[in-house]
Amino acid sequence: MKALVYHGPGNKALEDRPKPQIQAPGDAIVRITRTTICGTDLHILKGDVATCAPGRILGHEGVGVIEAVGGGVSAFKPGDRVLISCITACGKCDYCRRGMYSHCETGGWILGNEIDGTQAEFVRIPHAETSLYRIPEGADEEALVMLSDILPTGFECGVLNGKVSPGSSVAIVGSGPIGLAALLTAQFYSPAEIIMIDLDDNRLQVALRFGATQIINSSDGKAVEAVKALTGGRGVDAAIEAVGVPATFELCQALVAPGGVIANIGVHGSKVDLHLETLWSQNITITTRLVDTVTTPMLLKTVQAKKIDPTRLITHRFKLDDILNAYDTFGRAAATQALKVIIEA
Amino acid sequence: MKALVYHGPGNKALEDRPKPQIQAPGDAIVRITRTTICGTDLHILKGDVATCAPGRILGHEGVGVIEAVGGGVSAFKPGDRVLISCITACGKCDYCRRGMYSHCETGGWILGNEIDGTQAEFVRIPHAETSLYRIPEGADEEALVMLSDILPTGFECGVLNGKVSPGSSVAIVGSGPIGLAALLTAQFYSPAEIIMIDLDDNRLQVALRFGATQIINSSDGKAVEAVKALTGGRGVDAAIEAVGVPATFELCQALVAPGGVIANIGVHGSKVDLHLETLWSQNITITTRLVDTVTTPMLLKTVQAKKIDPTRLITHRFKLDDILNAYDTFGRAAATQALKVIIEA
Amino acid sequence: MKALVYHGPGNKALEDRPKPQIQAPGDAIVRITRTTICGTDLHILKGDVATCAPGRILGHEGVGVIEAVGGGVSAFKPGDRVLISCITACGKCDYCRRGMYSHCETGGWILGNEIDGTQAEFVRIPHAETSLYRIPEGADEEALVMLSDILPTGFECGVLNGKVSPGSSVAIVGSGPIGLAALLTAQFYSPAEIIMIDLDDNRLQVALRFGATQIINSSDGKAVEAVKALTGGRGVDAAIEAVGVPATFELCQALVAPGGVIANIGVHGSKVDLHLETLWSQNITITTRLVDTVTTPMLLKTVQAKKIDPTRLITHRFKLDDILNAYDTFGRAAATQALKVIIEA
Amino acid sequence: MKALVYHGPGNKALEDRPKPQIQAPGDAIVRITRTTICGTDLHILKGDVATCAPGRILGHEGVGVIEAVGGGVSAFKPGDRVLISCITACGKCDYCRRGMYSHCETGGWILGNEIDGTQAEFVRIPHAETSLYRIPEGADEEALVMLSDILPTGFECGVLNGKVSPGSSVAIVGSGPIGLAALLTAQFYSPAEIIMIDLDDNRLQVALRFGATQIINSSDGKAVEAVKALTGGRGVDAAIEAVGVPATFELCQALVAPGGVIANIGVHGSKVDLHLETLWSQNITITTRLVDTVTTPMLLKTVQAKKIDPTRLITHRFKLDDILNAYDTFGRAAATQALKVIIEA
Repeated sequence: MKALVYHGPGNKALEDRPKPQIQAPGDAIVRITRTTICGTDLHILKGDVATCAPGRILGHEGVGVIEAVGGGVSAFKPGDRVLISCITACGKCDYCRRGMYSHCETGGWILGNEIDGTQAEFVRIPHAETSLYRIPEGADEEALVMLSDILPTGFECGVLNGKVSPGSSVAIVGSGPIGLAALLTAQFYSPAEIIMIDLDDNRLQVALRFGATQIINSSDGKAVEAVKALTGGRGVDAAIEAVGVPATFELCQALVAPGGVIANIGVHGSKVDLHLETLWSQNITITTRLVDTVTTPMLLKTVQAKKIDPTRLITHRFKLDDILNAYDTFGRAAATQALKVIIEA
Repeated sequence: MKALVYHGPGNKALEDRPKPQIQAPGDAIVRITRTTICGTDLHILKGDVATCAPGRILGHEGVGVIEAVGGGVSAFKPGDRVLISCITACGKCDYCRRGMYSHCETGGWILGNEIDGTQAEFVRIPHAETSLYRIPEGADEEALVMLSDILPTGFECGVLNGKVSPGSSVAIVGSGPIGLAALLTAQFYSPAEIIMIDLDDNRLQVALRFGATQIINSSDGKAVEAVKALTGGRGVDAAIEAVGVPATFELCQALVAPGGVIANIGVHGSKVDLHLETLWSQNITITTRLVDTVTTPMLLKTVQAKKIDPTRLITHRFKLDDILNAYDTFGRAAATQALKVIIEA
Repeated sequence: MKALVYHGPGNKALEDRPKPQIQAPGDAIVRITRTTICGTDLHILKGDVATCAPGRILGHEGVGVIEAVGGGVSAFKPGDRVLISCITACGKCDYCRRGMYSHCETGGWILGNEIDGTQAEFVRIPHAETSLYRIPEGADEEALVMLSDILPTGFECGVLNGKVSPGSSVAIVGSGPIGLAALLTAQFYSPAEIIMIDLDDNRLQVALRFGATQIINSSDGKAVEAVKALTGGRGVDAAIEAVGVPATFELCQALVAPGGVIANIGVHGSKVDLHLETLWSQNITITTRLVDTVTTPMLLKTVQAKKIDPTRLITHRFKLDDILNAYDTFGRAAATQALKVIIEA
Repeated sequence: MKALVYHGPGNKALEDRPKPQIQAPGDAIVRITRTTICGTDLHILKGDVATCAPGRILGHEGVGVIEAVGGGVSAFKPGDRVLISCITACGKCDYCRRGMYSHCETGGWILGNEIDGTQAEFVRIPHAETSLYRIPEGADEEALVMLSDILPTGFECGVLNGKVSPGSSVAIVGSGPIGLAALLTAQFYSPAEIIMIDLDDNRLQVALRFGATQIINSSDGKAVEAVKALTGGRGVDAAIEAVGVPATFELCQALVAPGGVIANIGVHGSKVDLHLETLWSQNITITTRLVDTVTTPMLLKTVQAKKIDPTRLITHRFKLDDILNAYDTFGRAAATQALKVIIEA
């Protein structure tokens, strides 16, 4: 089968690889119909993810059709259309029972990382019954690709951890795909203000179309003053970090109001300064989270009920044969204005 | 009246000062019967608290008897015995309505800081009806001095924010008065493990008597390994920071398990490193809090029901005339083994 | 001044009464600019509310202008425009500190019940600082009359207690003003389904315009089957009772899914059957609540941010001189299609 | 093998039955070492449980040793010592993912009800990986039999649903095994008062030894007055119903304070009166729950940490050969003073 294979920092290739086989009773083989590329895939290609060895098929998002199931799988049968979660969950370890699938003792984020992933014609999914979701009749499968990772990530790590609530004020630092996913799902809770902050005017315009109440280009270094002016001098109830560098986390510390939350989504590569000399008395909360995808059933309902349109995140479409081009387009997002790209297998 | 007055860094004196007067309809004048000294008073004397100007009467803890009330006060009358909260709350601003008395727009921590405090024969308490608590009949007033600040601080900032729960594991970094207050109140929730960490063996022995299940002297630099060994390699559900320096906050980051909480109580004077490069994916929560004293009514009930004995924190007793001696004893805690000192006015 | 006075069951009159005076330091006198009539006023007129004695000026909703304040009031001054809460809260008793203003020891629902109310040119408001809300600059005062009672009631007793959440299913039994208030505020949380149930087709059509996803006229006795068909046989996550008779509470018990909530808003005059013989094992929650109006600040923000338009509840307008006519119109709602009527003073 | 078999109302027999076999990949066969009898078994024998057909082996509690596992089970192997949960959970259906194992679509309470149970030498456990718990090294197995059902039931349905918290007041109506299990686990949260109410003085004396702060024999019809006297006239924060008849649920309605919770544990056979004519405005919550056993891991930790001693509930011990005698002793609890009986297989 065709597959996009990681060959060490800076190297990847579309190759022919053997079709995956059932290895354990809980496995399923899924024929991929649509997949996508995540910012994390770019991290791997930069060599930042030590757990991902050369030779690995990339990708942890997608929808497809069950091709085969192991002897322990009763919830799915060949032919079922399924959504693949980026997080593999056994459903029975201590972490899974607590709803922390991200830290599943035999799962977590392993797809396209520790085991072969979804940017291929077929993928093996361990713990299939608790890592796949049946696609509802009549659902738009392209929309559901956004539920593999980006929407639950924005929602769980940003919106839920940020305790976004009716009438509250929210700042989202970073208007890339993940910040926009937080923006879309924040609106489930009717906050009074969603202030979007970025350096890229195009992305800010997208944010405005997606429901931001205010946009701020922070390149002039005056974002803090601007946010304070919009919030009666207090700052925001929730500052959502959707970039992953020290400067944006620093900004969040300056933006958050007493009693507020800094909800980190960004994947950080280095330590940051935490200003406890001022924050110790400000009654704030800082959260980190690798997405657990525990809200996938809830998000499926909101998509079915048309409370959210995930296809708004999709800017480009490619065939699997053309996946190198897709990577190029996604990788040069500032120039191509790419958000999420769909790859049809 | 006699009062302990701050005269700038390193300087304090027991002086004669005018008795305070009612200034606003919500004020009460309280005759102090017992007060105490807080670590924060030592901070002020080091010159670390910019809001506290020379000439200020120190102290924000105590019990006493109502001497006079303003025209707007109906809940108290002269002769009533009252507990003074370290936090002054108007009860009507946005922060107070949200239970964040610490950030009351006309209150917060002002006693012995922005206005004259309790280390005196009399004190003026603004917003008296929401900043004083009636002392129940038959209560031990000495015990209740511990409810002005140290017990609600350990409980709210450490135990409640740390989400201590039955069967959970807790590490408290710092076995001084505030860490011990967290230790005493953590036991309200029956955690399986409370591991106390400090550099002072005497304080660790106190912790053991107060209910710690394990004690660790961290002077050998091996506290992390020791805690991991006690928690099946995972770390603790709640790491409570009760010191306020970078090294102890660093230790908490190494101790906390995935899904756990770092609850900061310590008053920090400088920024700290936050290791988001590892913690971004660990689903942790970090909290800061200036005590709100919203749990004072609850704590009063637990004292009355003998679920906790706050007098265990009291090691020394002095008369107000002898308060300089009390400061000396409290300030040299390692040598004197002082925890909390009672000063009778 | 002119005032609408209750004279025992079935009797009311628009009369001349003395203007109210400041009686306590926390009082304010408010000149009413707009008020309205509540279903509870009709209950009083039927003789159902024993605490309301003949001679009482009715009304517990409205907006107006501060005319005078007592010596203990600093938050407001004459000329300030204010929203009057239907619930009077001292802000300092045990119940108020717990956010249960409805059970304030010297307040609660007393306006137009135990003390004279708002259907008059002037009203005295005790505990003014915690019972009045400043009207934001530029706000639509007519809209804010809906925040005195009906919107916080629908929101707190129905939506918050019902734990309405993104993707969830909700049934609201009763499409009168209070059910519609629940419908409007439920949408803050983006539920997947809001099923509105009533006997009056006109009110159901209003519900559809207000955002109901499904409407059911229950006069054929088949509402349960209809709801089950819409919810995959399970029933709803939240069944909101907005009528107050045994039959509608019975219906809610049949509609609620395992794990769901029955949130009662209705004012009940008699006991009801609770089917514990089936519900004991269904993991359900039943809540009752007299509105606390603790969400008034939040609701003000949502109105200011245009997340909700409360004026949609207003169907008729009258002058205070014409209040008997207003009562007649409101009392014959089925015929007049009245929801809320505005009375200008 | 030997097994206690239900033969219709009033009839049971100790018989020889075939040893159970693995039927599905997720099954395990457990050799029972200790089991017990539940009040629910008596309900079945009265003919009250329609789902339990004649021919059924009774029992849903116990500990034992894994004898065999199906092909899909990797978490356990023959020889492992395990605790059997009374609730069978697949871990993957919607209800299980929400932590509502009681309503598992292919599980729930089926053991000794819809499938053969644990009062036998061997039992088949479906969904073994999510329905069995490994017994920690060195644990007292007799104590752990109390974790199959009675302790999680008292804790989840009574204490957690009742929101028992430090300093709060609790009344437990019914001092039988389940009420006593609530009493033992309520103490995890350090309430100020736990008032135990029953008609049997012996059971009340047991309650006193188990930690009740007050006991009330309600046979004089004055329990309400007594509780009001103990709670400053307000009633209790949590009223836990641990009997299951209309009179005790009625009593709970009279005992609960405004803002409080009635947490029902009792298995009810008929409807009850709910006094909404008074309770509609009292801001109360009523909960029902079939135990989910989601707290079993937490309870195991509290037992290991010696925060609770479940063996205090054990009054009698029998061999499996003598199980009819055990039923007789348990069934005549008033005379025999039996709480829980251990049956060794």
